[in-house]
Amino acid sequence: MISFKQRDVISILHFNKEELLYLLDVTKRMEQTHYSHILKGKVLAALFFEPSTRTRLSFETAMKRLDGMVIGFAESGATSIAKGESLSDSVKTIEGYCDVIVLRHYLEGAAQLAADIVNVPVINAGDGSNQHPTQTFLDLYTIQKTKGTLEGLKIGFLGDLKYGRTVHSLAYALAYFGAEMYFISPPNLRMPKDYMEELKNRHVACHEAESLQDIGKRLDVIYCTRIQEERFADPIEFEKVRGIYRLSKPILEGLGVKDDLKIMHPLPRVDEMDESLDGTNYAIYFEQARNGIPVRKAILATVLGVIE
Amino acid sequence: MISFKQRDVISILHFNKEELLYLLDVTKRMEQTHYSHILKGKVLAALFFEPSTRTRLSFETAMKRLDGMVIGFAESGATSIAKGESLSDSVKTIEGYCDVIVLRHYLEGAAQLAADIVNVPVINAGDGSNQHPTQTFLDLYTIQKTKGTLEGLKIGFLGDLKYGRTVHSLAYALAYFGAEMYFISPPNLRMPKDYMEELKNRHVACHEAESLQDIGKRLDVIYCTRIQEERFADPIEFEKVRGIYRLSKPILEGLGVKDDLKIMHPLPRVDEMDESLDGTNYAIYFEQARNGIPVRKAILATVLGVIE
Amino acid sequence: MISFKQRDVISILHFNKEELLYLLDVTKRMEQTHYSHILKGKVLAALFFEPSTRTRLSFETAMKRLDGMVIGFAESGATSIAKGESLSDSVKTIEGYCDVIVLRHYLEGAAQLAADIVNVPVINAGDGSNQHPTQTFLDLYTIQKTKGTLEGLKIGFLGDLKYGRTVHSLAYALAYFGAEMYFISPPNLRMPKDYMEELKNRHVACHEAESLQDIGKRLDVIYCTRIQEERFADPIEFEKVRGIYRLSKPILEGLGVKDDLKIMHPLPRVDEMDESLDGTNYAIYFEQARNGIPVRKAILATVLGVIE
Repeated sequence: MISFKQRDVISILHFNKEELLYLLDVTKRMEQTHYSHILKGKVLAALFFEPSTRTRLSFETAMKRLDGMVIGFAESGATSIAKGESLSDSVKTIEGYCDVIVLRHYLEGAAQLAADIVNVPVINAGDGSNQHPTQTFLDLYTIQKTKGTLEGLKIGFLGDLKYGRTVHSLAYALAYFGAEMYFISPPNLRMPKDYMEELKNRHVACHEAESLQDIGKRLDVIYCTRIQEERFADPIEFEKVRGIYRLSKPILEGLGVKDDLKIMHPLPRVDEMDESLDGTNYAIYFEQARNGIPVRKAILATVLGVIE
Repeated sequence: MISFKQRDVISILHFNKEELLYLLDVTKRMEQTHYSHILKGKVLAALFFEPSTRTRLSFETAMKRLDGMVIGFAESGATSIAKGESLSDSVKTIEGYCDVIVLRHYLEGAAQLAADIVNVPVINAGDGSNQHPTQTFLDLYTIQKTKGTLEGLKIGFLGDLKYGRTVHSLAYALAYFGAEMYFISPPNLRMPKDYMEELKNRHVACHEAESLQDIGKRLDVIYCTRIQEERFADPIEFEKVRGIYRLSKPILEGLGVKDDLKIMHPLPRVDEMDESLDGTNYAIYFEQARNGIPVRKAILATVLGVIE
Repeated sequence: MISFKQRDVISILHFNKEELLYLLDVTKRMEQTHYSHILKGKVLAALFFEPSTRTRLSFETAMKRLDGMVIGFAESGATSIAKGESLSDSVKTIEGYCDVIVLRHYLEGAAQLAADIVNVPVINAGDGSNQHPTQTFLDLYTIQKTKGTLEGLKIGFLGDLKYGRTVHSLAYALAYFGAEMYFISPPNLRMPKDYMEELKNRHVACHEAESLQDIGKRLDVIYCTRIQEERFADPIEFEKVRGIYRLSKPILEGLGVKDDLKIMHPLPRVDEMDESLDGTNYAIYFEQARNGIPVRKAILATVLGVIE
């Protein structure tokens, strides 16, 4: 029987298909059943060494709506880190105050380091450009909920596929479910080779392209990401690329996409999706963000051992 | 029958006399009755894009004392805004986490924008130099409580009447109650013309002056505001003005003010009221600040529909 | 009978031996008994004008675990202080929102000032380089708990004894208990003369030295502090000193210390204790930090009058 009790949640790579489905199932129960009080008396330490709105507030909300308590900080400026304290010393102390730690840190590997040191469960809320597993859980939950299944979908990943950690994690997770994947990016922001090889080793049908032309109409889901100007040496080059990877209602219609195509985005967006998309049936990115609540309720409740 | 259920609280201009009196009545009940638990299970998102002590902490306290929960941030630096996210995207996401939003923002119109987008009630906690309606509610409540009535009072507004949003809102609200108003300011910080015309259209007896001389003794209430140095091109000019608009116990006595004159101030003050005033019967500004709690309890409880 | 109800906690100097023992006794009860709900309905205002992790989070945790509520701020940037408000005006307002204030401020005397103004109890969580009494309480509790007694111990204070407020306070408190004290520091960071005289007036056996050589083996407890580079005009001088006052497992063994020697540190450390110490029986600094919870529960519960 699967149990996440006392388990650290560091990387999507640590979860097999059965465990992913288990977590999605608990998430569904969290949406359908009114669980209050189940985290009464529990303390979450939310340690955000980097700015965040969505992730921090949704963890806080999830914890509080289940009657738990939250301590922590929203940026490291107001902490002893400003005095030069090491992360391991910080978490060793804070461990004594709480029942579970949620950590966002600018350094890759920070969450694993913390998990190795403390005895309470550690949930990675983003470590540098590395992993952000609860984002992937909510991406999966959103796809499952809106498409009715995770099996056999045609997914397009669009934009910055080189640095986009949400893309890397989601592609890995979807590999369990027979997805066919399309990676659409500028040449300098392609999906990294080792990821592509790993996906091929796992028998995923992968395609690469530089635009949605001819591909858009085949897709069930497009997962967009933000292209950051600082990735380009030349601003003119950036402007050109930005135009190509910007979605709007007319563009989608011009591509002849399926009626039930869904557009996802981890947010925040800057301008990669036009606001003309917001009201359409395609757009599920705000619903996606809101799914952060039941997903994070499910994670907290399972690692704290109150739900099985 | 009046109900504020699901209502946005954006501007004092959206409230008629009956509604103001209704809110003051609920506020009184909040002070006199021990309502706990009425906001149990409700989440307030307190989104402060600008610094605040009083407003933020009193909203938080009001919510928590009624057994509600609070999420949010005290400054935008620790949020996705730092990544360039639009306000509308932020609130569209956060809407999914909460039951009511309290918003302070540096841009005029921000609260209305948010209210137009989301389905939960939005309470404006200050949008630039525009509106701050809950401050006006607590100003009205303070006057009503200390003077026994809102009707037919002689009110002096002192200091920076040009940029002082609390003055503009309170003057509008008091126009419902037959107040006689005195606007005392330096020439460059007079009450704006369109406000004066609107007040006259509503048959308010208005007077303007540059000092309290001859006027002080007639007043029931003096509402002070801070004069900011940056409003003056010349620091010498500022120093001169600052001296004239500074209140102290001896100055009030020299003016021959009424024994039951009350001095109000939205706080924070810098030096516009001497500390010699603090212990006197005139000074009600700290009581005024504390009235923020029952007023904000009343607003939260009514827009969340648990009190009618 | 001792009662701390409504009492301010400003300086360790305000507590006599009987009161210290009383507080340690309540702390022990807080650890051994599951007190929940005793602070239900109470609001703590945590006003941190300076960065803190441990102190702020442990006060918050203590309050919340006893079912109390917390409002406040973690740095003054997000408050009206940024608009020039005085501390006394801030606390006079906030007093109206809460039942107890915990204050950390960069100015010496700030907590006493606040306590003189407001009617709710004020707990000093550090005022400049002056006092931090709850740190001393948890230091005492840690010693009592690990050594079984506070009486007649040989204590070494190591590092920066000139500016280390935790050392000054702990030395004063231990003077009640017949401690023999060793002050080991570089010449420019010796224990200030007036403290030494006060201790001698209270018949404390005091010794000063520049290294642990010959002394280390006599000690029951070593209380380390951080030596800050900015105390030295010459970086070379600093590097030399830093090496001497750095503890490690081999160094302690080389000194022939007692098996039951305990190493304490108020944290955060930078490098004054080598990580080789962390797993040893000597190291109790993380346990010390965790004792902040029961100690602060005891302080909050007693000043709020719910425990006697």
